[in-house]
Amino acid sequence: MANPMNTDQFRVAAKAAVDEIANYYDNISDHRVVADVEPGYLRPLLPASAPLDPEPWESIQADIQSKILPGITHWQSPGFMAFFPCSGSYPAAIAEMYSNAFNGAHFNWICSPAVTELETIVMDWLAQALGLPECFLSGGPTHGGGVLHGSASEAILTVMVAARDKYLNEATAHLPEGEEKEEETWRLRSKLVALGSAGAHSSTKKAAQVLGVRFDTVPVSEENGFSMTGEALAKKLDQLKAKGLEPFYLTATLGTTDVCAVDDFASIAKALAPRAGKPGEVWVHVDAAYAGAALLLDENKPLAKPMAEFHSFNYNPHKWMLTTFDCSAVWVRARGHLINALSIKPPYLRNQYSDNELVTDYRDWQIPLGRRFRSLKLWFVLRSYGIRGLQAHIRNGVTLGESLEAKLATRPDLLTIFTKARFGLVSFRATGDSEEQINSRTEKLYEAIIASGLFYLTSTVVNGHFAIRVCTGTAAVREEHVQKLFDLLVETVEGQLKLE
Amino acid sequence: MANPMNTDQFRVAAKAAVDEIANYYDNISDHRVVADVEPGYLRPLLPASAPLDPEPWESIQADIQSKILPGITHWQSPGFMAFFPCSGSYPAAIAEMYSNAFNGAHFNWICSPAVTELETIVMDWLAQALGLPECFLSGGPTHGGGVLHGSASEAILTVMVAARDKYLNEATAHLPEGEEKEEETWRLRSKLVALGSAGAHSSTKKAAQVLGVRFDTVPVSEENGFSMTGEALAKKLDQLKAKGLEPFYLTATLGTTDVCAVDDFASIAKALAPRAGKPGEVWVHVDAAYAGAALLLDENKPLAKPMAEFHSFNYNPHKWMLTTFDCSAVWVRARGHLINALSIKPPYLRNQYSDNELVTDYRDWQIPLGRRFRSLKLWFVLRSYGIRGLQAHIRNGVTLGESLEAKLATRPDLLTIFTKARFGLVSFRATGDSEEQINSRTEKLYEAIIASGLFYLTSTVVNGHFAIRVCTGTAAVREEHVQKLFDLLVETVEGQLKLE
Repeated sequence: MANPMNTDQFRVAAKAAVDEIANYYDNISDHRVVADVEPGYLRPLLPASAPLDPEPWESIQADIQSKILPGITHWQSPGFMAFFPCSGSYPAAIAEMYSNAFNGAHFNWICSPAVTELETIVMDWLAQALGLPECFLSGGPTHGGGVLHGSASEAILTVMVAARDKYLNEATAHLPEGEEKEEETWRLRSKLVALGSAGAHSSTKKAAQVLGVRFDTVPVSEENGFSMTGEALAKKLDQLKAKGLEPFYLTATLGTTDVCAVDDFASIAKALAPRAGKPGEVWVHVDAAYAGAALLLDENKPLAKPMAEFHSFNYNPHKWMLTTFDCSAVWVRARGHLINALSIKPPYLRNQYSDNELVTDYRDWQIPLGRRFRSLKLWFVLRSYGIRGLQAHIRNGVTLGESLEAKLATRPDLLTIFTKARFGLVSFRATGDSEEQINSRTEKLYEAIIASGLFYLTSTVVNGHFAIRVCTGTAAVREEHVQKLFDLLVETVEGQLKLE
Repeated sequence: MANPMNTDQFRVAAKAAVDEIANYYDNISDHRVVADVEPGYLRPLLPASAPLDPEPWESIQADIQSKILPGITHWQSPGFMAFFPCSGSYPAAIAEMYSNAFNGAHFNWICSPAVTELETIVMDWLAQALGLPECFLSGGPTHGGGVLHGSASEAILTVMVAARDKYLNEATAHLPEGEEKEEETWRLRSKLVALGSAGAHSSTKKAAQVLGVRFDTVPVSEENGFSMTGEALAKKLDQLKAKGLEPFYLTATLGTTDVCAVDDFASIAKALAPRAGKPGEVWVHVDAAYAGAALLLDENKPLAKPMAEFHSFNYNPHKWMLTTFDCSAVWVRARGHLINALSIKPPYLRNQYSDNELVTDYRDWQIPLGRRFRSLKLWFVLRSYGIRGLQAHIRNGVTLGESLEAKLATRPDLLTIFTKARFGLVSFRATGDSEEQINSRTEKLYEAIIASGLFYLTSTVVNGHFAIRVCTGTAAVREEHVQKLFDLLVETVEGQLKLE
């Protein structure tokens, strides 16, 4: 069998790739942040079909520079302040090399015990580092534990499935097995409602679409800083119950996508307290996809405490915690609910370790069967930075957000802070005489900054207000970049005003 | 901010990792195939929590050898003939290095145009190389196209959601928007049935659990080689319809997990023909997760033709096609059904390219929002091997399966072929006087081979028959390994018979 690359050729080619990647990072600021290509740019550059015969490695590797790089948006650039960051690091990159070397589907323990066991250990480490309550530890009193998924969307879908099955099982537990129970289960299914605040990420709505259950939102207001409150939740629950509907699941958010709002966990827990722990309780999942990493800082630890009242929690180390995409950490307080909802044991997956319940089979904690060895990069990152190193990195993002806010506050004639810096996210708008003028000026400002190629920011619309979001969590961002952005914002608005 | 590794240190550490990985592959046969550790082996070797301060890189990297490697099951070893292979290659490994370097969440086109555009192009290349019908090409007449998911489970869940929403929309299209339509939709939801053959992979049942719809199986028989037939399907559909249920989705399989059976596509299409293309039609998804790669061979191309009658198709290049986990290719004949079911457009994800429908946003073709740059490894593999090189690799697996079958046939006194070699998968049993004795001897044989540490095989139970599966698709397997396995099987059975 023809092998295009033997081990010695791999050593040479992979080391050349290491150098090319290192050069890319050393010179990342030379690129426009957002790729400057037209839709369809790549097709004319490639043949219409795959080659019949092998191509030389040199021409394949050369195409990275000539054909791929022009179409890359540089998420690691210090000018990338859009969305939330997707941060990598050299230790994570090397871990990924090893993870790919130990290439396998790792769906149960025996498929590579190290993959399962390291994941359990590192998820316990991480829960402790964030100050999450004991119920989320693998050895905790409620038989909880953590698992790594690919994305928060997957995490939310997975816990929503567990929440639904728990709800239906509990609500029909009083009926004997049989037709009546089945009919009641189908009746209840048609009444289920999954909830999120109006600021919850779209993944909750998408998960509800996948499950085929209703989705409804709990309103949030500017006065409450766009946080969901227990009062608003209670009102929504009453409305739904009055219509004969069955709210079974809620996504609460620690750091919404729009403005990094933190829901009012204490009042939410209080609103749900009458039914908590009883059949018919609402499963509360806390989505901290981005801002969860900020729980590493001591001053944010109090935010982790109320999690003891809730059922599951996720955050993405691939966002702000340097572990390279994809790596989404999810914890549940009772793993049995996941396993009950998702476990299937065909004969070809059986083995003595799993059958005797000696081991964890993470395939029963997730949608896919196969699993990547994601815990390795988390382990490398935690050890190479240490908790203090990670705290310093998170602090950098937080401080730079505050720095930008302070700068914006010096030019109230041009710019208004829309939501104050929190977890490295600030949002602001241009000034103007009317809401319409403000929206229009802000949108123009946003488009001009993107067109400059120097920074990538995100726009959003919250309760009708067009606002620009800046997130300073990308690892390469320093004070000089924040200053440069601020100068560009001022210069651009001033230029726009002159033309009006 | 403290950075544990600067670019120069990365160059050194990453190149050292390249050498360690190359050495691992050069000496992979020195390891027992299946990890020989006890459950819980790792926890005592690690501290109880993450370190506060950075650890030196040398001690982190050294732990790969001392702590991780003992817990690895070696999927790339020539002794790995269990499950289906999970095959990697050096070109794919280097592609993954670049993919991680361009680290980002890439959920829409502008997030890195190269990620989206290369995927569309390579999926067209791959569809052509497999001989899939035109309807699955991105520029085809039915507006189809391909997308890369992480796993076949995810692919099947995703198309099942699309199938459900298509079915419900069509079945209620005659009703005006309003309460009546809504009630009819909920009534139908409670009647939906997803189907697979008794040999379909467990992921179809799991997807039905996630959606909260019924799952039922179409029986298969030994006489038909465990293939699902149109006749059996028609009978099942009639039974379900008679109960007032609504079958809306079917997984047909090209290469079942147990025995690599191929469903009878022609008779399935015929059984469904009366409703095909009309409201109420059953969405047929063809799961070729492993054996789909065999369509690269010209003699298997006829198997691809009937796909023109079906709605979607998936296979995993990470299984038999050397692209390193994870990489699951899915094609649909009409992408609109995916997008209708899964698209959500919050303000923070809007941009001019997407709004003007100039580009593909693959986030609407899948469950997660974020996406890895998976097409890069597929591109590298297709170009570095060329179609002919990949054919030679697939042919190797097929031929070695036939070789094992021929060897087994020389010892009918000891071993019986259960299912003949197909796509590199053979299954067999020990001989015996009764079904009970055969099952018991086969199970003992299986356990002895696993215990040897020389080979990893899978056992299964099909219609009550315990059988051993051997899959020769792993890239490193050669004739010498098949001979060694056969010799070990013979020696082991002979030894067992002596002890009886």
